[in-house]
Formats: sequence, structure tokens, C-alpha cells
Amino acid sequence: MIDHQLIPGIRAAYEILEGQYLKILELWISEGRKGSRVRDILRQAEKSGIPVKAMKSGHLDRILPDVAHQGVVLKAEKYRYVDLNHMIDRAAKSRPFGLIIMADHITDEGNLGALIRTAAFFGAHGLVLPKDRSAKMALGVMKRSAGAFVHLPVAQVVNLGRALDTLNEHGFWIIGTAGESLSSVYEFDWNRDLVLILGSEDRGLSQSVKKRCHQIIGIPRTGRIDSLNVSVACGVILSEMTRQRTTKAREKI
Amino acid sequence: MIDHQLIPGIRAAYEILEGQYLKILELWISEGRKGSRVRDILRQAEKSGIPVKAMKSGHLDRILPDVAHQGVVLKAEKYRYVDLNHMIDRAAKSRPFGLIIMADHITDEGNLGALIRTAAFFGAHGLVLPKDRSAKMALGVMKRSAGAFVHLPVAQVVNLGRALDTLNEHGFWIIGTAGESLSSVYEFDWNRDLVLILGSEDRGLSQSVKKRCHQIIGIPRTGRIDSLNVSVACGVILSEMTRQRTTKAREKI
Repeated sequence: MIDHQLIPGIRAAYEILEGQYLKILELWISEGRKGSRVRDILRQAEKSGIPVKAMKSGHLDRILPDVAHQGVVLKAEKYRYVDLNHMIDRAAKSRPFGLIIMADHITDEGNLGALIRTAAFFGAHGLVLPKDRSAKMALGVMKRSAGAFVHLPVAQVVNLGRALDTLNEHGFWIIGTAGESLSSVYEFDWNRDLVLILGSEDRGLSQSVKKRCHQIIGIPRTGRIDSLNVSVACGVILSEMTRQRTTKAREKI
Repeated sequence: MIDHQLIPGIRAAYEILEGQYLKILELWISEGRKGSRVRDILRQAEKSGIPVKAMKSGHLDRILPDVAHQGVVLKAEKYRYVDLNHMIDRAAKSRPFGLIIMADHITDEGNLGALIRTAAFFGAHGLVLPKDRSAKMALGVMKRSAGAFVHLPVAQVVNLGRALDTLNEHGFWIIGTAGESLSSVYEFDWNRDLVLILGSEDRGLSQSVKKRCHQIIGIPRTGRIDSLNVSVACGVILSEMTRQRTTKAREKI
């Protein structure tokens, strides 16, 4: 019975040791592994009372072949998804506004991980994923999020359309993103509770999502490329949201 | 003597067939490869008079092991870097302002490729890379740029500090980026010729670069993560630049 998971990499170890979503069972370090960041990790593990195991050189490569573990691996309890209604309740109470991200069938683990890192940087309150045809909260996603996943609750739902209906009932605006949209990210008023939906690079938004959107927002390009990576698009939009909110807050002073 | 290179993947093939920086010698397609995007690529190759070779199933895997080629590979002339002075001359003449990106020792090919895609989307006029301790314009970078590299001239320089001195002499503002900066991306006036410098995730800006910066800009975080991926940070800054420029342009009407 596998009730634990292995999480490789220095940055992920560091963030998870500081974080709260995963219970850490052991820290494994390759013998001879040095450097100030490894020392930081060891110090943090000691502080938290986590057992440290020194691994013979090459042993981690055999356990995790083809993984860039950097000689540092955490053995931790499995990832726990949160309940959508719980996530919505918390987001709706957040000031100034609730912000939930929805990944509409993003299958690439790297893209989902990068999206999580971006969403966490800008203080999103949660991420909603579909159960099928989507990357899950697996090692590749956690690694690529650079450990940021510990700061972003994730809910898995069977049906994105129904999840949006629930969000709508709670007063959230449903905002889709698409390259071809006529509504610019810079002109939309971001001061409201909202769910921001990002589609996959290949397919964009699915029909059941699109028809529920109150608004579809695009990022005007100034160059010759017509699309951005999904985490960059998310960063651009959340940055504009932040700018508007901080500007409005300042105007009130 | 190798005077050509192999570029794998559907999106890269499509962008390069439409682009201009690489001369394409042949298009290789795995037998039985179908789909509307493959048909588009074949149509484009035919229009451009590029010879198409059908490859036996499995043959591309042997030529490019461990590469996600999707059954589509371009054989093309090697990448050609441009001259820095030529890049500066072109950027300085661009309206409304010249915009050059500098990657300060970014060694991760994926990060450099994603940075290129973002810079091309927002219409940057060129990218400056150091010759040593940096990812080069290799397959991994081109692939991750999703083909965008054909739209962004790249100069390789021996010394980033000297390149910045040259840019300074041409009237470019030298803007560094750092998480810990007190100057916010939203408050800086982006309406000027400038070079925007992005450091590596591990080390940030190098000393010889930092001391030449007229300004160091940061992105205020609202969440619990203290850093963004380099391509996301670049996207956030170039988006704010775009917003300011389009707003100013509109105010003049």
C-alpha cells in the first residue's frame, strides 16, 4: 500500500519544509551533498523534527530514475485536495476580493506547475481542476511550481460547468481568457470576486465553460506571436488585477 | 561537417515555416502522421518549395531519442546570431520606443525559450545573451519558444557589462529586475528606449550588470511566494509597458 509520495529537488524541499499542506515523513539527502541551500534545508528539518536519512551516492538515481532530484528528496504524505465549497467560502470572505483560478483541462504538468506558482505569487485563494483529462497534483507539477503548491489549495471536480454554476451562485464573476478576445485585460474592471479560467494551449476553453463566462478577456499583443504560455498569460492578468486594486486602494486614501 | 540542425515538433515546424530566420532544407514527417495541423504544415512546405521526406515509423525516434518530435522534424540551416550594433540601430529607430531584452546568464533552456516567446509576443526588438554560462539558441530553446524565436533577433556578446555600456551610449535606459526591489513595475514610466535585464532564478543579476542599472524594478507580490518564473516576470513587466504606452497614445488623441 502506497500512502506516501517522494518529492525531489532543493527548492521544492525548502518550500514544503516551510509550508503546511503536506506532512513530511523523512528527508533524504545524498552523501556529500553540500551548499548553503542544503544546509538551510537540514536546519529547517531539524527544527521541525523531521528524520534525515543520508543516502549512498547513486541510490536516489535508482529510486527516481530520470528525475532531477539534486540529491534532495522528501518523503511525504500524499497530496490532499480540498473541497470546492470550502474553497469558495474562504475566497468569498477574503479582502479585497475573492480570486479563484480554474485550469480548463491543462494536461501538461509543467504548465500546470508554472500556473500554480504564478497564482500563488499573486495571492489567489484556490485552483479548480477537472478530474479527467487534466494534469494532477503529481511530482512534476509540484516541482515545476517551485514549491508554491503548498500555498494554493486545489479542488478536483467532476464537472467544470457545474463548479462554475456553484461559483456563480456565490456571486463570483466568471472570466474566461482567449487570445482572440476583443475585451482587453487593461480595460476590464477587476475589482470584484471572480474565477479566472485558463484553457489548454492546444484547445483553449471548452464549450461548457465558454458558455458560462460573463466575459472573455484577451491580452493585446504588440509583436508577431499570437499566444502566450498559460502561466505567463495568467501572470499578466493577475498583475493587472493587482495594479488596479492597489491603485484604487490608494485613490481612497 | 555539420552545417544543419534538426528542429522537432509541430508548433515549431509551423512557426518556422512561416518565419524568416532559418533556411529550411527539408521537412521530415513520420508515415501515417495525420491531423489538420500536419496538413497545414505540408501545405505550407509545398507553397515554399521545401522537399518533404516521409520517414518510416520509429526512424525519427532513432535519430532524435528522448525528444518529443510528434512525428514532425525540420532540417534547417544553423541558427544565425545577429550583430549587437545592428540590433541597437534597428531598435533605436523603432516607434514608439526601442526595447531590448538581456538574459543575464540564464542557463535553463526551457526558461530561455519561454522568455523568448514572451518577448516576441510583446514586440521586443532583440535579445542579448552572454557567450559563456548561458543557454544557447539550441533545439530545446527553440522548441520551448513555441517557434517564437524566428521573430526575435538574438545577439551573443562576450561581456554583458560592455554591451550595456554600448546601449547606454545609444541612449537606452538600463533597467534591471529583482524581487527585492523597492521600485514597483506599476510606478515606473516605461515610455523610453530601454534594455530590460532578467537574471537567472538562482543567482539574480550579476554584479557587473547591477552596477550599470539606472533603475532596478520589482513586481510587488500579493501572495506568499516571493519569486516568479523569469518568463512570467518578463511578461508582467512588458504587459505594464504595453498598457502605459497604449494609454498614453490614447490620451494624445
